[in-house]
Amino acid sequence: MRTKETIVAISTPHGVGGIAVARLSGPDALSIAEKHLSPLTSHLSPRHATYCTFFSSSPETGEGDRRKAVGEGYDNTIPLDDVVAVYFPKGYTGEPTVEISCHGSLYVQQALLQALVDDGARLAEPGEFTQRAFLNGRLDLSQAEAVADLIDSVTPAQHRLAVSQLRGGYAQNLKDLRQQLLDLTSLLELELDFSQEDVEFADRTQLRNLLSSLLTQLSTLIASFKMGNALKRGVPVAIIGSPNAGKSSLLNALLGDDRAIVSDVPGTTRDTIEELFVLDGVTFRFIDTAGLRHSDDIVEAMGIERSRKAIADAHLVIFVHDVTTLWHEPALDLSDKKVLVVLNKSDLPTHSSLITPHSSLITPHSSLLTPHSSLLTPHSIPLSAKTGKGLDALRTAMVEAVKSDMPQDDSILLTNARHYEAMCRVKEALLHVSEGLDGGMPSDLVAVDLRDALYHLGTITGEVSSDEVLGNIFSRFCIGK
Amino acid sequence: MRTKETIVAISTPHGVGGIAVARLSGPDALSIAEKHLSPLTSHLSPRHATYCTFFSSSPETGEGDRRKAVGEGYDNTIPLDDVVAVYFPKGYTGEPTVEISCHGSLYVQQALLQALVDDGARLAEPGEFTQRAFLNGRLDLSQAEAVADLIDSVTPAQHRLAVSQLRGGYAQNLKDLRQQLLDLTSLLELELDFSQEDVEFADRTQLRNLLSSLLTQLSTLIASFKMGNALKRGVPVAIIGSPNAGKSSLLNALLGDDRAIVSDVPGTTRDTIEELFVLDGVTFRFIDTAGLRHSDDIVEAMGIERSRKAIADAHLVIFVHDVTTLWHEPALDLSDKKVLVVLNKSDLPTHSSLITPHSSLITPHSSLLTPHSSLLTPHSIPLSAKTGKGLDALRTAMVEAVKSDMPQDDSILLTNARHYEAMCRVKEALLHVSEGLDGGMPSDLVAVDLRDALYHLGTITGEVSSDEVLGNIFSRFCIGK
Repeated sequence: MRTKETIVAISTPHGVGGIAVARLSGPDALSIAEKHLSPLTSHLSPRHATYCTFFSSSPETGEGDRRKAVGEGYDNTIPLDDVVAVYFPKGYTGEPTVEISCHGSLYVQQALLQALVDDGARLAEPGEFTQRAFLNGRLDLSQAEAVADLIDSVTPAQHRLAVSQLRGGYAQNLKDLRQQLLDLTSLLELELDFSQEDVEFADRTQLRNLLSSLLTQLSTLIASFKMGNALKRGVPVAIIGSPNAGKSSLLNALLGDDRAIVSDVPGTTRDTIEELFVLDGVTFRFIDTAGLRHSDDIVEAMGIERSRKAIADAHLVIFVHDVTTLWHEPALDLSDKKVLVVLNKSDLPTHSSLITPHSSLITPHSSLLTPHSSLLTPHSIPLSAKTGKGLDALRTAMVEAVKSDMPQDDSILLTNARHYEAMCRVKEALLHVSEGLDGGMPSDLVAVDLRDALYHLGTITGEVSSDEVLGNIFSRFCIGK
Repeated sequence: MRTKETIVAISTPHGVGGIAVARLSGPDALSIAEKHLSPLTSHLSPRHATYCTFFSSSPETGEGDRRKAVGEGYDNTIPLDDVVAVYFPKGYTGEPTVEISCHGSLYVQQALLQALVDDGARLAEPGEFTQRAFLNGRLDLSQAEAVADLIDSVTPAQHRLAVSQLRGGYAQNLKDLRQQLLDLTSLLELELDFSQEDVEFADRTQLRNLLSSLLTQLSTLIASFKMGNALKRGVPVAIIGSPNAGKSSLLNALLGDDRAIVSDVPGTTRDTIEELFVLDGVTFRFIDTAGLRHSDDIVEAMGIERSRKAIADAHLVIFVHDVTTLWHEPALDLSDKKVLVVLNKSDLPTHSSLITPHSSLITPHSSLLTPHSSLLTPHSIPLSAKTGKGLDALRTAMVEAVKSDMPQDDSILLTNARHYEAMCRVKEALLHVSEGLDGGMPSDLVAVDLRDALYHLGTITGEVSSDEVLGNIFSRFCIGK
């Protein structure tokens, strides 16, 4: 444990701004901060925002204690900035914490950190404040991870998942699962107590029912990861179709106004968001099918490995067909995909292959997902990327396609790859338990698998954790959190 | 005046971080903030850091008032984030201010602003908080400008100038000047009172003495701008010399380790700092003499206009000579420059032109500025950019060259181009006064020029200001300050 050290960092985003906030946490936070602040009548009052001046140590003397320096008859220290300081006896970390708001100049931020470090504070590592909050029992590990997710959130869906996980709805689910595992263990241990007498309980129904219920819950959770991850990172969408079908125009038309919504967010770099767009709270992420778009004819040139891979990642595929040309279906395997068929250029005369036998095609319909065996149905979406006609119908269809897969209760969505992995291991261990029971394995051996399941569940909340795991988790964080 | 509006902005730097701070200022700051905060026992206590939950309005109802929504039996509002809110009855702006610390996520920052704007706050314009502080008499205009300088400060010298100006040392100087101008006016008006009687005071000594003293002070101030600006933006240094004299190597050797000091500052982009370096608190800015370095022979090809111009901007010129070659002086006009002569490659055998008659040249000397008429003196600095020998002597000489020009008292340094311009106009007006007195111009006409001087002095502190001037000044600021 290094929590005897007092740590410090700038907690606000890097760069220049109106103000910046330095956070100091640990046993000496108050005394280190107060050495640099003046005038203070006595100590900083808890939770009181105190306006005062921050003094750096003098570069000549390297002397951190301003008052001492003044007392000795020389004041060669420099007023660094006018600041607002707040002392929290038990801050975010669960430790004494002082937050100092200074002007957001690069020089002031750096000099303020330097002054506090000169006085015995240590620069905090990424996520170290949250790690301390975890170690001090203020958050469990899944909540600590939710803090990082919250900070990274750009879209409403990401935000909602993170807040839900942070506020403990998710943790409660894990607790329930854990209780059921413990119940299972008790039942088995009851059997173990009698194992010397070589009896086996005639009725293992309760044990099996509990096990089966647990396995069902785990399967649901594990299955939810695909959607949870899609909601968190954006639902992956691929736009495919023949060259000149209008894929790029469609993408631009879709991103058009909506892109502006996302890029309004301050500081967002174009690079990371330009293929994201948000509809009705759902983030869609367009998979880079540039390779597809630039190939000579992706519908026929089916051998291209890259195209297949891009489409394999997609949750939703938009197949664009140019109505002025002969209809042909993509030869790609789209069996496990949701596919939306867009009949583009519907402002132009329609090719005869589309008129018969599908005479009703060009009338606007509410769209529907089509079976891949025959993509062309009356529910395909007539659209003109040029005029914008049909875009709303496509947007509605995209949201419908995702929302039908979404569970109503966010708290049981698995969104974290580490948790997904752990859940898979819990399930695996429980399958061993099931096999063991079926195969008449001795209860004490079955119990080993159960303990394994409990162990893996415990890694999610941090009841069980290793330095390595903690290191991995908290290195994801930004410095200052 | 628009100060009846309540304004809001994120005051911390743009981007993602551990925390971000939204600042809300104006008559409705408290009521707008409190609508979104829960649980609050009553109102936010002044200056008390209150931990609470921030609720956005519901996107469905567009309803900003959470408690009202709950009261009407539906709670479709969303908890946005757990925040710390502090209410200042008279904040930085001199108005009621609420500062809300939230998680530094792009989504949370944006949604929080949106929620407050939906409730009647307006997004603040750049510098609008500081502009309000000025309009409410919390700062004069020169102090407001110092806030922007403080935020922009990257080096200790920039920081010191800004803090000194912000803390009013500079403002006191301006006040003294103003008082003297007013005294001058009184003396002149005394004369005016008697002008009907066509008398002229026999003894104008006092008037002339005061005028002369003022003109001297103004000249000193105006002259200090060159140094003030150099300290603020970095002392401009040009490195010149024949091709292959080792100019680039010298620049690299100088920047080498020192560059790291500046680039340690978080968020600093390489682009803006890579030609800056700080020695003993003084920032040096290397003028781009790439054109010079790449020309065939700048010492002889003197016609190049670009070279002349680059050197004209330099405060300090480092002339690099390769000791293995024949000595010749640069044909550039360096009469008003500080010149340091570096004898480079001094680890190699010295050319005979340097050995006689200057036999003592190669011994290390404390350097000195040389008269341009004959640059080569015993005080030139032998150096080897390759081995690093002599670099320290050069650094010392550079700092000495600048420090000898620096006034001891920072507060009388003119650092701002706008103030420089205004001071020049004050001086111009006073010269007219002087001419008027000499030429026997009537006192009432002389008084017009005096009022002109007072007007221009007033523009610096903002006693006189126009919307256009204010707009120019505050548009320099970042949003949120």
